[in-house]
Amino acid sequence: MNNESMIEGRNAVLEAFRSGKTVDRLYVLDGCQDGPVLTIKREAKKQDTIIKYVDKDRLDQMSQTGHHQGVIAVSAAYDYSEMEDIFANAEKKGEAPFIIILDGIEDPHNLGAIIRTANLVGAHGVIIPKNRAVGLTATVARTSAGALNYTPVVKVTNLSKTIEELKERGLWFVCADMEGEVMYDLNLTGPIGLVIGNEGEGVSRLVREKCDFVAKIPMKGDIDSLNASVAMGVLSFEIARQRLKK
Amino acid sequence: MNNESMIEGRNAVLEAFRSGKTVDRLYVLDGCQDGPVLTIKREAKKQDTIIKYVDKDRLDQMSQTGHHQGVIAVSAAYDYSEMEDIFANAEKKGEAPFIIILDGIEDPHNLGAIIRTANLVGAHGVIIPKNRAVGLTATVARTSAGALNYTPVVKVTNLSKTIEELKERGLWFVCADMEGEVMYDLNLTGPIGLVIGNEGEGVSRLVREKCDFVAKIPMKGDIDSLNASVAMGVLSFEIARQRLKK
Repeated sequence: MNNESMIEGRNAVLEAFRSGKTVDRLYVLDGCQDGPVLTIKREAKKQDTIIKYVDKDRLDQMSQTGHHQGVIAVSAAYDYSEMEDIFANAEKKGEAPFIIILDGIEDPHNLGAIIRTANLVGAHGVIIPKNRAVGLTATVARTSAGALNYTPVVKVTNLSKTIEELKERGLWFVCADMEGEVMYDLNLTGPIGLVIGNEGEGVSRLVREKCDFVAKIPMKGDIDSLNASVAMGVLSFEIARQRLKK
Repeated sequence: MNNESMIEGRNAVLEAFRSGKTVDRLYVLDGCQDGPVLTIKREAKKQDTIIKYVDKDRLDQMSQTGHHQGVIAVSAAYDYSEMEDIFANAEKKGEAPFIIILDGIEDPHNLGAIIRTANLVGAHGVIIPKNRAVGLTATVARTSAGALNYTPVVKVTNLSKTIEELKERGLWFVCADMEGEVMYDLNLTGPIGLVIGNEGEGVSRLVREKCDFVAKIPMKGDIDSLNASVAMGVLSFEIARQRLKK
């Protein structure tokens, strides 16, 4: 299952872009401006790939072959799905759409566990942002325990914009936050998007402002907050419970 | 927080036992039978420490100092609590005891996330077995996000025996299993112990037979089961929900 690949060297990286492979991130030697590198950067921009400029030591350290020639592309271990796959999934099951939106999950174990839970709770897909978030790496695939083969994961450029588009298709959005209303008191049935925030910072302000409800898991303890994948599990099963009861 | 310590060498290990330090595991060079090693093994047995016999290559690989002299002890990063600490915790809060029992959790990230959730859901303590399970390592402490400073974790030799003893003190036991009754249909209020099984094998037969109820999280997906820490989160918050409503 170790198919998260690092593609190194100018020809190999350019070839990856041209063949339509999904590249999660492109690392380029800072200051490198020659023709081939500019061509690669142009292809990367066409595909909205994140470009990171790093120094030679960092590239040398990442390199598995020792021949990176100033460019390393990290491709996804799994292909991303399209938004329509999520809606097709809901329609096939004859259910109102139930989508998990992740606002910047960084830990691959959390992302894997969330995809696994999304599958089991009956969510129809997962949406992740392009930036400041882990992609579908081999660790994510392994931690998802096979769920990645069934549950579509869609990567988008701008979460707020995506939420607006999905609202036009009839979805309501609820985000998880300690400042919200107790989840048992909210009506979480119907077509819904559940927004889970970053491990450290929670849901970002811009995304939060787009949400219709803010839901709180009632807690009693001495520490701050649940692990992101556990919080997602508890909230998504509350949504499932309300749907079941309805 | 990197205070999970490996203690190496005969004098250091013997000293650790005699000072009353909690040793999670003792690694001994297979076939090693001289006086000092026999003394160490005697001390380990007095404290019910698990002894593992390994070959020289394995010990050399584990060793951080290069001078293990045939013995390496792994001590807990945190001290374990006593069973009475859990009951005192419940009494202080004026609540019926709510205890999490872990039947062989092996992944330190899962154990840490479970202790974190136990704290936040309002459980009064966590019980883990001595054998075939991860102890309170530095990774567990870190993943618990501080919960280990508040939630007592007790280590016991025999889970079935502990369950029997706790039943005599009025607790009911519910274990998580796909073959059980839907959790919403069970009465999970009152003094309760929630049993969560091993990541791969679930709850062992002996422990399961001691349980009063078997609870199922209703699932819809294409794959087998939830991650252990997510399953614990979903079930323990269902217990909290029922207690809140009561």
